[in-house]
Amino acid sequence: MYRTHFVSEIGPELEGKEVEIAGWIFNVRDLGGKKFLLIRDKTGLGQAVLAKDSPSFSLANELSQESVVKVKGKVKADKRAPRGAEIHVEELELISKAKSPLPLDVTGKVKADLDTRLRERLLDLRREEMNAVIKIQSVAVKAFRETLYKKGFYEIFTPKLIATGTEGGAQLFTVIYFGKEAFLAQSPQLYKELMAGAVERVFEIAPAWRAEDSDTPYHLSEFVSMDVEMAFSDYNEVMHTLEDIISNILEKVRSECENELKALNYSLPEVRFPLKRITYSEALEILNGKGIDLKFGDDIGTPELRVLNEELKEDLYFVTDWPTLSRPFYTRAKNENSDLSESFDLIFRFLEIVSGSSRNYRREVLENALKARGLNPSSFEFFLRWFDYGMPPHAGFGMGLSRLMLMLTGLQNVKEIVPFPRDKKRLVP
Amino acid sequence: MYRTHFVSEIGPELEGKEVEIAGWIFNVRDLGGKKFLLIRDKTGLGQAVLAKDSPSFSLANELSQESVVKVKGKVKADKRAPRGAEIHVEELELISKAKSPLPLDVTGKVKADLDTRLRERLLDLRREEMNAVIKIQSVAVKAFRETLYKKGFYEIFTPKLIATGTEGGAQLFTVIYFGKEAFLAQSPQLYKELMAGAVERVFEIAPAWRAEDSDTPYHLSEFVSMDVEMAFSDYNEVMHTLEDIISNILEKVRSECENELKALNYSLPEVRFPLKRITYSEALEILNGKGIDLKFGDDIGTPELRVLNEELKEDLYFVTDWPTLSRPFYTRAKNENSDLSESFDLIFRFLEIVSGSSRNYRREVLENALKARGLNPSSFEFFLRWFDYGMPPHAGFGMGLSRLMLMLTGLQNVKEIVPFPRDKKRLVP
Repeated sequence: MYRTHFVSEIGPELEGKEVEIAGWIFNVRDLGGKKFLLIRDKTGLGQAVLAKDSPSFSLANELSQESVVKVKGKVKADKRAPRGAEIHVEELELISKAKSPLPLDVTGKVKADLDTRLRERLLDLRREEMNAVIKIQSVAVKAFRETLYKKGFYEIFTPKLIATGTEGGAQLFTVIYFGKEAFLAQSPQLYKELMAGAVERVFEIAPAWRAEDSDTPYHLSEFVSMDVEMAFSDYNEVMHTLEDIISNILEKVRSECENELKALNYSLPEVRFPLKRITYSEALEILNGKGIDLKFGDDIGTPELRVLNEELKEDLYFVTDWPTLSRPFYTRAKNENSDLSESFDLIFRFLEIVSGSSRNYRREVLENALKARGLNPSSFEFFLRWFDYGMPPHAGFGMGLSRLMLMLTGLQNVKEIVPFPRDKKRLVP
Repeated sequence: MYRTHFVSEIGPELEGKEVEIAGWIFNVRDLGGKKFLLIRDKTGLGQAVLAKDSPSFSLANELSQESVVKVKGKVKADKRAPRGAEIHVEELELISKAKSPLPLDVTGKVKADLDTRLRERLLDLRREEMNAVIKIQSVAVKAFRETLYKKGFYEIFTPKLIATGTEGGAQLFTVIYFGKEAFLAQSPQLYKELMAGAVERVFEIAPAWRAEDSDTPYHLSEFVSMDVEMAFSDYNEVMHTLEDIISNILEKVRSECENELKALNYSLPEVRFPLKRITYSEALEILNGKGIDLKFGDDIGTPELRVLNEELKEDLYFVTDWPTLSRPFYTRAKNENSDLSESFDLIFRFLEIVSGSSRNYRREVLENALKARGLNPSSFEFFLRWFDYGMPPHAGFGMGLSRLMLMLTGLQNVKEIVPFPRDKKRLVP
């Protein structure tokens, strides 16, 4: 095989042992007639030393940055090397030579703008910071699932090719499906509701699409949506479930990604549970008190959320009980006041990262909700008809993975998070 | 909240305790002036008894099958009830009344054909067998990830909207992307290779699409692909990794889904590891020996694999070293004979459930491989250019989740597995 050890396993305790490592040339230094190769693999950086009399010495000149090599040799303890040991090279194989100069500096010393980084993305993803983002995301989705498995949820996969848009057809991408028109799902909303009507507790992590016209740091045409739906439940229980999920994610990222957070020079927000909850009406009052002119029914946008964040002095908080008509048709109104709904957004500072609600489960209520939004119930018959056959009360939420990742990495733009982001001008690489 | 207990928690040890359960009416029997309600929730069936003098007695006539109810009452031990206890109803709430008759029998007594089942799918998914399929799948994907986490793999999400088809454009669905043409990814192949070129070990579980014209029990237009890619590796190591994955999946389904396998009346195949490996050439010899006329380069189709399965007496086996030109352009040829490739299929009886290989990692080899297949390297420049910047040798595989599920459930058609399957004639529900 290609190696006996990862570079992070090379330490003084292996003194004298013959090992093989493989990785990318991070840099080559020439010192006192010896060549010092710094080699990167997925576990970090390790050092190999090439003596002047080595048969591979001449090959050292070929070792451009990011070339792939395999090194065989004996481990020698040396305090000056990473982890206190280096490999004295006996055999050096140049597996894949990289062109130079590189179009992007992988060591991170020379900064590049986002457009360049996204164009030269493979090299960008090899930077320590992007390695950290990829690992933190993997740990976060693992922690998300862990909490749900414990609570008896099943992971599901719902269709992405659909005949009707979830919320009425805006911003849908059209697919040519065997000569007919189909659409890419904006969210698994209606299908996850149906699945909850069969097996009660479900979640899904899958792509979703919106034809976003605008270019913001928080929107993409293709994004990963983390969805939860539970039967015999309401928005209060769902908020508790979400708190358990967020708490587990923060704990796992904190404990398993210490080096990655250091690489990003970022500290996770200190969050106290239960999270602060304020109603939409209370938020309006606070904002009105700060001289911001918002009326009932108006959306609370990013600039207003920034003010709210300052006033509340909380990094992570719920805004609940939104006006019914400002939410999608499947949102359940409150019993005591139908102008308000059993709904919530989870806000990180000034950014909505989760949106959830209790759902309507009576057919006639759903039909009226559709009409009230100018939508035609007959287009939703594929969904509505199931409400004739015993749909339980249910509730759930959808979380944007890359928005969550802004909270977990301190990055400012979801295009930095997603390895190959898709927007109006980007379909390649 | 809606309940204090799941029905599976109601047992004689709760004697005298007041509980609330919620679920679907499975059936109602009238015995000696009492009504016995069999109520289903996600944990199984439980019994509630309505006495003649109960204020809710008259409501019992409204309890059509699949209606959603909530029941409050005291637990009484009774050997004749499921789990030895029943609930003596004090309050009964009819939350959501189901129309009758139902278009599909949820108890499973009256069998329906697949078309009917897929049309009335929500009711079909409530059947015990389909509940079992959903749970087994959730346990299987969890076990798949578990093995990979342990080996240091990261979970990734690659783009599904792409500019060029992976294997040259056949069977792609077209998407109208901001007035331009884009495609739905047939597989994450090229992107997972790039990610392996950055962080070495990656996996992804995500939808993929093929415009399948034919109607078979093993093909869908939209399917879930489970993909693994690892750097500094080859097909032998990948086959070992896959064996570890399959072994863990079988173990976890066996131990966590005993009741579900019973509901499906199915026993998992007894599989010995390491799995049997035969080369393509050996397979051809065996088949030729049985009078089947196949020449080098011919595909080994389902009918031939049935014969092979009988001859080998193995439920699960690898066929390795396929002709290079019968595999996609990214497949690496063998050093000692470039007509053969470092490739494998994993076969369950007569069905390919996984396909994998060592991958090409030299640009000129990739360009030649594209040309040899009549493809134009310049269409793949977005992929090829990264091979100038240090791509390591790598290898991986793709597994079809619903094909794997045929092995785990004994079902015969992937359309039964997928809750809402998509094919040439199905886009709804």
